[in-house]
Amino acid sequence: MAASKGTRRPRAETPKGFRDWFGAEVTERAAMLARIAEVYHRYGFDALETSAVETVEALGKFLPDVDRPNAGVFAWQEEEVPGGGSGDWLALRYDMTAPLARVAAQYRNDLPAPYRRYAMGPVWRNEKPGPGRFRQFTQCDADTVGSASPAADAEIVAMLAEALEAAGIPRGDYVVRVNDRRVLNGVLARAGVAPGAAADVLRSIDKVDKIGVEGVRELLTTGRRDASGAMIDGVGLRPDQAAPVLAFLGARGATNDETLASLRTAVGDDNEGVTALAAIAGLLAAMGMDEDRIIIDPSVVRGLGYYTGPVFEAELTFEILDDRGRRRQFGSVAGGGRYDDLVERFTGQKVPATGVSIGVDRLLSALAAKGRIGQDQATGPVVVTVMDRERMGDYLAMAQELRAAGIRAEVYLGNPKNFGAQMKYADRRHAPLAVIQGSDEAARGVVQVKDLVLGAALAAGASLEEWKDRPAQVEIPRGELVARVRALLGAAA
Amino acid sequence: MAASKGTRRPRAETPKGFRDWFGAEVTERAAMLARIAEVYHRYGFDALETSAVETVEALGKFLPDVDRPNAGVFAWQEEEVPGGGSGDWLALRYDMTAPLARVAAQYRNDLPAPYRRYAMGPVWRNEKPGPGRFRQFTQCDADTVGSASPAADAEIVAMLAEALEAAGIPRGDYVVRVNDRRVLNGVLARAGVAPGAAADVLRSIDKVDKIGVEGVRELLTTGRRDASGAMIDGVGLRPDQAAPVLAFLGARGATNDETLASLRTAVGDDNEGVTALAAIAGLLAAMGMDEDRIIIDPSVVRGLGYYTGPVFEAELTFEILDDRGRRRQFGSVAGGGRYDDLVERFTGQKVPATGVSIGVDRLLSALAAKGRIGQDQATGPVVVTVMDRERMGDYLAMAQELRAAGIRAEVYLGNPKNFGAQMKYADRRHAPLAVIQGSDEAARGVVQVKDLVLGAALAAGASLEEWKDRPAQVEIPRGELVARVRALLGAAA
Repeated sequence: MAASKGTRRPRAETPKGFRDWFGAEVTERAAMLARIAEVYHRYGFDALETSAVETVEALGKFLPDVDRPNAGVFAWQEEEVPGGGSGDWLALRYDMTAPLARVAAQYRNDLPAPYRRYAMGPVWRNEKPGPGRFRQFTQCDADTVGSASPAADAEIVAMLAEALEAAGIPRGDYVVRVNDRRVLNGVLARAGVAPGAAADVLRSIDKVDKIGVEGVRELLTTGRRDASGAMIDGVGLRPDQAAPVLAFLGARGATNDETLASLRTAVGDDNEGVTALAAIAGLLAAMGMDEDRIIIDPSVVRGLGYYTGPVFEAELTFEILDDRGRRRQFGSVAGGGRYDDLVERFTGQKVPATGVSIGVDRLLSALAAKGRIGQDQATGPVVVTVMDRERMGDYLAMAQELRAAGIRAEVYLGNPKNFGAQMKYADRRHAPLAVIQGSDEAARGVVQVKDLVLGAALAAGASLEEWKDRPAQVEIPRGELVARVRALLGAAA
Repeated sequence: MAASKGTRRPRAETPKGFRDWFGAEVTERAAMLARIAEVYHRYGFDALETSAVETVEALGKFLPDVDRPNAGVFAWQEEEVPGGGSGDWLALRYDMTAPLARVAAQYRNDLPAPYRRYAMGPVWRNEKPGPGRFRQFTQCDADTVGSASPAADAEIVAMLAEALEAAGIPRGDYVVRVNDRRVLNGVLARAGVAPGAAADVLRSIDKVDKIGVEGVRELLTTGRRDASGAMIDGVGLRPDQAAPVLAFLGARGATNDETLASLRTAVGDDNEGVTALAAIAGLLAAMGMDEDRIIIDPSVVRGLGYYTGPVFEAELTFEILDDRGRRRQFGSVAGGGRYDDLVERFTGQKVPATGVSIGVDRLLSALAAKGRIGQDQATGPVVVTVMDRERMGDYLAMAQELRAAGIRAEVYLGNPKNFGAQMKYADRRHAPLAVIQGSDEAARGVVQVKDLVLGAALAAGASLEEWKDRPAQVEIPRGELVARVRALLGAAA
């Protein structure tokens, strides 16, 4: 090691594009995931936690090129094996689906078939970091491997709706939309669009949110001038070919039955996608999942290029204020669909699968926006202050009594000389109450309990009048500490 | 990509030294960690989750050598920065303490001081894998940064005892032992052992579990012949120098007071270590933590070399059968102590800290050995079988009703043609009950409920006599599905 390096202090910095999570950020996410897991478990899904590290070979997509694989994953090469060749390339997982594919192939003789599993945890993407874009984030997936039945799709979307409600999004504040890739395939076939143009058509209709239906019509046909004045090439469909594609996008009726009728008109009765959507709609109705929770909606285009059959999207329908203070719909928090190539890479056998992934961070933002998390700072502990350093045992005993009664409590462990510093500490800890006992109080067998919520309210401008029944500090018998603190916490809540 | 590579199928394998966790392995660990987190929270500790990835520079210890740092961590170099130099070396965290050091330095102006935090999650070690030794495992730590008070140590060990009890280890089945590095320092100083020999002395006494006190005496003095007949060099202490070291190891009396009296005899009244141990013992007594839970024990040597003051170890005291069927004590499940160099690397300032780390996987093994987890296979779902493929909606509705009543349930989603395969599936799912409704039952408004626990018991050789009051299959009205299934599950539990 060079001397210059040895003498420089290391930087205390989270690596670029990574972040840390503190306190409620950790516990609120964990609590939300636990509530979602409870729903998944009730639906018969089993937990699966794969190792965070996979071989690059098993991950697929990202095979080593010349020197190191770097297209989106964090990868490194194992040490060379003595007497063997070079070591395996390893990488951090970039999603939960690739590890599921590996597990489904590796344990195919031991897992139940069909295999329902859920997975929750961090994934990593080696992407250029940007504001609000992180290279480690949490995914929460549920998939059914080995069933081609529309019942598997219906079950996944019903479970998604219940999971959102369990997470704290009430009915009416979300909608799960279901579409099917094969309907669009049928539309394109009927319109005589060459199969090779399907990808371009998908890319065009994927922009409908940004450029509207007329913009998509331009893109599908002769092209479109964008905001900067540049001409974007069109796909080159004739207007009579573009029309049914646009009709498909707008085929949603007032009810699922109306929507399915329009789709049948558009692609005929024998379209596999419409058949699947009709089956899913029927099964959802049988499950009591009404159309205020889950609807058939041909305007869902996200994922149509990736999935092979039904696609799902969950959207939050309430409005929030964006960064610039404008009202807008919160938007998508989960997506998924059916895919058939999961295990095929490993075994050569096609295995049908369907699943959904919840965007945990977006869902947490939504809950914060709805005031369902992050509002309550009163989770801070009761702080027992230290007036006499030599009576530390007494203070620890007070905290211990409070804890035994289920009350979060701690003793100030910094230098106790400066009482102001102790109160500042209690404030930083969002402590609702401070317990104070000097030698005088100890001799008289009492403690002082200071109401810090009231103190904060007064500091914030509340009038004493509003709080007149609530003294800022009370003296209580030491023996009544637990009972009185509990009563005061009840009043503060 | 070479054609030969493109045509070969990827191997579906967990990388060497890594593993996957299925079902109860995931949920039992999560439940245990949640119970421990509840204790930590009650003691005023806040959750912290750092990014899994750190800069090698911040991790310390493992600085890049020539090409790549590989001494125990998984590390890789970031892509070169355009126009800048080469990219940072990044690595997966190998424990929870190094990231805490980085956080304590990085956020020192924003965190409360002292800062109590807990952290739970995976850590990674780039070590040679072996049987039962994995390169990813879970740690569960709690530390107090910024307090030199023995109250911080007492609080940590009291919390550790409560955490073990919350995890499912009853009082009497564990003991937390406390020692202090500075007592041994005092012993060595009094015996006239050169400070440079301290590390060798520590290494020798660390072997006391394996070679006994007489073996340690040999190692401290002239050396020792090991089992293979090879001579191990001794530290070279005179017998009168080795004697107080051995006396220190054996200084534990029947009570903490007796132990502290022996230690005072060994190193005098003014030894900082004895003073700290006496303070901790007094504070623990004030907290009501009796000596059946936490004791002062000079025979704790693990960690003496690493920590700077008090060291802690939690040991499970019940016996288990080892791999060879021999009875042995379960042993250590947690350890920790006080260390002062946490933040110094980053800021140059000494910041006192103390903490503990629970070995999550060992604690889970202990719970399994005690029959507290892993015994109950009756967590499988009720399986609704499929007799008529076209009545899938009816079956989904049954499962949905059961779920709405809080009962775990699922519909068989494989090919329903072979009923035997459905029952085999239910068996693999550890289903307690199967629900069956053919067209005949549907017409009559009934369902059959098959008791699979009874079926398994009969298959395992139980006589019908024992089970005579419990029919293997009952026919019930469709409208009573939830009530009757709930009753049957109650009987099976």
